Amino acid sequence: MRRVGFQMQVKKDRIEEYKEAHRNVWPEVCAALTRHGWHRYSLFINEDGLVFGYFETEADFAAALAGFLAEEATQRWGEACGDLVDIPAGGSPADVLIELEEVFHLD
Amino acid sequence: MRRVGFQMQVKKDRIEEYKEAHRNVWPEVCAALTRHGWHRYSLFINEDGLVFGYFETEADFAAALAGFLAEEATQRWGEACGDLVDIPAGGSPADVLIELEEVFHLD
Repeated sequence: MRRVGFQMQVKKDRIEEYKEAHRNVWPEVCAALTRHGWHRYSLFINEDGLVFGYFETEADFAAALAGFLAEEATQRWGEACGDLVDIPAGGSPADVLIELEEVFHLD
Repeated sequence: MRRVGFQMQVKKDRIEEYKEAHRNVWPEVCAALTRHGWHRYSLFINEDGLVFGYFETEADFAAALAGFLAEEATQRWGEACGDLVDIPAGGSPADVLIELEEVFHLD
């Protein structure tokens, strides 16, 4: 299993909406995550709306993300919630999630 | 097991030193982490030196952190590396790590 960390910026005036949406992530979105190898997946948020994601996968971040983004349920979820996050100018949904560098690990 | 996410700010001009130090964390520091219930512990860093930590513990963040900080090895590690991170004015080492709110989890 490979460990992945990423960050994503939620719009500062929409943090509560983001939290609320994630209390009830659609079952078909969860199924899509599992199907594309997102295991032990958590999202954490700070007071500024910066989100940190952690998951473990057999693949790598790019493959897990590409598979997930290609799902029909993910695209509907993006239409419902995509406006809550900052997308870099000219960017695609894949650009929203920025992979981080793991600098330490202890089992 | 409880999942914990936290953040910590490395000084922007000392990011490389921080990475280098974490390539060779002392065995006695790793042993102290394990003894105080830090499991599956990873540190990730972004380009601005913001560090995101993830671990799982039987206890809670405050207990795991207090136990770890009280260890002699941790105090020596803090003397060696503490200057690499931003400590809030008037803060203690415990104030360096800011716990984050988990907003989503999928096994």
